Amino acid sequence: MDFQDIIIKKRDKQKLTKEEISFFIQGVTDGSLPDYQISALLMAILLNGMDAEETAQMTMEMAHSGALFDLSSLPGFKVDKHSTGGVGDTTTLILAPLVASLGVPVVKMSGRGLGFSGGTIDKLESIPGFQVGVTEEDALTYGKTSHLVLMSQTDNLTPADKKLYALRDVTGTVDSIPLIAASIMSKKIAAGANGIVLDVKCGSGAFMKTQKDAEALAHIMVEMGQHVGRKVTAIISGMDQPLGMYIGNSLEVMEAMEVLKGNVKGDLLEVSLLLGAHMLLLAGRVQTEAEGKALLQQQIDNGAGIAKFRELLIQQGGNSAIIEQPDLLPLSPCSLEVRAEKSGYLTHMDTAKIGRASQETGAGRAFKEQPLDFGAGIITKKRLGDYVEAGEVLAVIYSAKDKACASAAEIFQSALTISAEKAPLPPLVLNIISA
Amino acid sequence: MDFQDIIIKKRDKQKLTKEEISFFIQGVTDGSLPDYQISALLMAILLNGMDAEETAQMTMEMAHSGALFDLSSLPGFKVDKHSTGGVGDTTTLILAPLVASLGVPVVKMSGRGLGFSGGTIDKLESIPGFQVGVTEEDALTYGKTSHLVLMSQTDNLTPADKKLYALRDVTGTVDSIPLIAASIMSKKIAAGANGIVLDVKCGSGAFMKTQKDAEALAHIMVEMGQHVGRKVTAIISGMDQPLGMYIGNSLEVMEAMEVLKGNVKGDLLEVSLLLGAHMLLLAGRVQTEAEGKALLQQQIDNGAGIAKFRELLIQQGGNSAIIEQPDLLPLSPCSLEVRAEKSGYLTHMDTAKIGRASQETGAGRAFKEQPLDFGAGIITKKRLGDYVEAGEVLAVIYSAKDKACASAAEIFQSALTISAEKAPLPPLVLNIISA
Repeated sequence: MDFQDIIIKKRDKQKLTKEEISFFIQGVTDGSLPDYQISALLMAILLNGMDAEETAQMTMEMAHSGALFDLSSLPGFKVDKHSTGGVGDTTTLILAPLVASLGVPVVKMSGRGLGFSGGTIDKLESIPGFQVGVTEEDALTYGKTSHLVLMSQTDNLTPADKKLYALRDVTGTVDSIPLIAASIMSKKIAAGANGIVLDVKCGSGAFMKTQKDAEALAHIMVEMGQHVGRKVTAIISGMDQPLGMYIGNSLEVMEAMEVLKGNVKGDLLEVSLLLGAHMLLLAGRVQTEAEGKALLQQQIDNGAGIAKFRELLIQQGGNSAIIEQPDLLPLSPCSLEVRAEKSGYLTHMDTAKIGRASQETGAGRAFKEQPLDFGAGIITKKRLGDYVEAGEVLAVIYSAKDKACASAAEIFQSALTISAEKAPLPPLVLNIISA
Repeated sequence: MDFQDIIIKKRDKQKLTKEEISFFIQGVTDGSLPDYQISALLMAILLNGMDAEETAQMTMEMAHSGALFDLSSLPGFKVDKHSTGGVGDTTTLILAPLVASLGVPVVKMSGRGLGFSGGTIDKLESIPGFQVGVTEEDALTYGKTSHLVLMSQTDNLTPADKKLYALRDVTGTVDSIPLIAASIMSKKIAAGANGIVLDVKCGSGAFMKTQKDAEALAHIMVEMGQHVGRKVTAIISGMDQPLGMYIGNSLEVMEAMEVLKGNVKGDLLEVSLLLGAHMLLLAGRVQTEAEGKALLQQQIDNGAGIAKFRELLIQQGGNSAIIEQPDLLPLSPCSLEVRAEKSGYLTHMDTAKIGRASQETGAGRAFKEQPLDFGAGIITKKRLGDYVEAGEVLAVIYSAKDKACASAAEIFQSALTISAEKAPLPPLVLNIISA
């Protein structure tokens, strides 16, 4: 098979066969195809698309490009969760302990953040002592004992995705719905869970800017799940403002713990309960979404959720004293308040820009190997629709350097719109798509 | 400037600025841009296009990526000619001596053939002793004394084009009109002539299959000439059958000499006279196309054309005895006649397939460094519209090996359609486009 013929076929808007897709992904995996041919095909795919069948075939080839994580020895229906990435979006740290506390196993591999959205693994690493590297053997043991593992991806998980993602990241070929779907689903399929709840973020702080794109991505992933025998539910949730009030690594851990303790309500709690309820639904643990949410709320109220979080910390070497003493978590030494320049209603937040402000503090990466400042970030004080007085504190910026605080504050300030008239609030949940 | 932003801009169908195109071509030339980013941009350009301004800017950047050949010390209006490539398309060997014999300087750099179409340099190299490598200094001397130089491209001519072409050749990004135009025109501009006649081939044996595509390419190149102060005329000529009766390297030299001697008429002579007449028009040597053709025909009739060809051979070390004794040119030892399988009219020739048959004999290259068999090729006996009897000889195949003769004969046979009914003949000249 001549790879250039495959490039030309897709360039000419034709559908690729299973054999051609297999040749492509195997060549990516074994290194036999040169990067310059791969990137030409990626651009042709981005511009000319792939249909559901091509995307499913590519996903399965990518899932099988490395070792599959076999969770079958673990009793029960295993549920996983994935977010397409947002700002202040730390639902995993809340819902995973809650769901596991009900005996439904959550063995979840997560990634690091890049660009304006943070990664669960980075947040966990901000906890003193916490080990994100877990062997498959240990993961299976923890899955049986605590029902909960949060770990980084194993080295040999979907090598084709790793290589393709690295190439897409530098060739302008990230923003392709079929390629995004294949990347997410190949990892989730390889990670072995029976059911997957996808949080597809939509809005100014998400990769998917429109509901239409978010729904297209959701539909393709839910369909794919059906083809490969995994139950998938996709929730389209709003990202027109940061989900939580805290943005950063240790800062998001702090807020997650407050939610688990029942001290903080709001959008972050709401979305965590919703996603968690759908995990329980997939696992057959509850019959309705409402029942699931109530059960999870009960695990907050009775302390079972925060207890499970403590168990996770101890299991993976983290200092569990942070639960009582959040000041044991790192917090960057320099801080700066951002104050409202005028009075009015907060009507718009450019959430990607807020993500970039957080990146500027040192809490996010501009490039792959960049070390993070775990204690940096932003504590926001206001949400869309709030009335603010001129001079009132809108946020507090934390960073290692005053200069970074100042530039992050400037970006943050420019991301907000304060108007005399109240504007309609964007919905928190836009749609729920399941098979 | 971040090159990925440029890729994304073209991916999103936006127009690139002069500065962005300059950054791109300079990065290609100095090797600072990785191939995988370049190929992603090439695919985006192929699929989303470039307008006339972008194409002109890219062309000028490419022309200036290496040394420009300065012909200004040579008196008179210098004319150049380029064909987009066809089968049996050896007009340069005919028109260049004819035009030069009238005192209009022709200093022409040519390339090698790849795929189904041959290159002038390969044909010249089939002449025993002929040197295609000529220094700029010698070329300027020859330009003054004989008014004629046929030479290979100097090493430092348009290095950006060399690199881009090599990458396009393996990434499915050859068939882009703006990229083809930029490649041709950058070389022609760098080669220094004041006027350029382009032979844009159109039909089954050309890169441009339709008149619409051929005209689009022609228009863009003529316009570009206006922007950069070169006079350009483009002739759209038919390539629905081989232009001459002989296909190969030494075989095409043989036919060109017969045309120059006045022994052979037909399409090859017609197109050579037409292209040559437009070169004379650009140079201001004649006032009308008809006058130009008559003057060139006169140079055939009075022997001045073949005399100039002899002068060229002697000047560049070639054995001029081939003019009287064409059998001093190589001819491959094995031959095979292709005979008509039935009687009828020759109504269609798949000319690209005939080119591939010629390639199969050893006369053309499948890959860049492939050595050629200079004496291989095909002598055709029939043209479109001819009536053939079953069993009549359609062509004679020449190759170093009987096996290659047999497979080339099979390909040749399959390229012809013989029908009971006569079909309309395709036009030889479809359009002439000038500023």
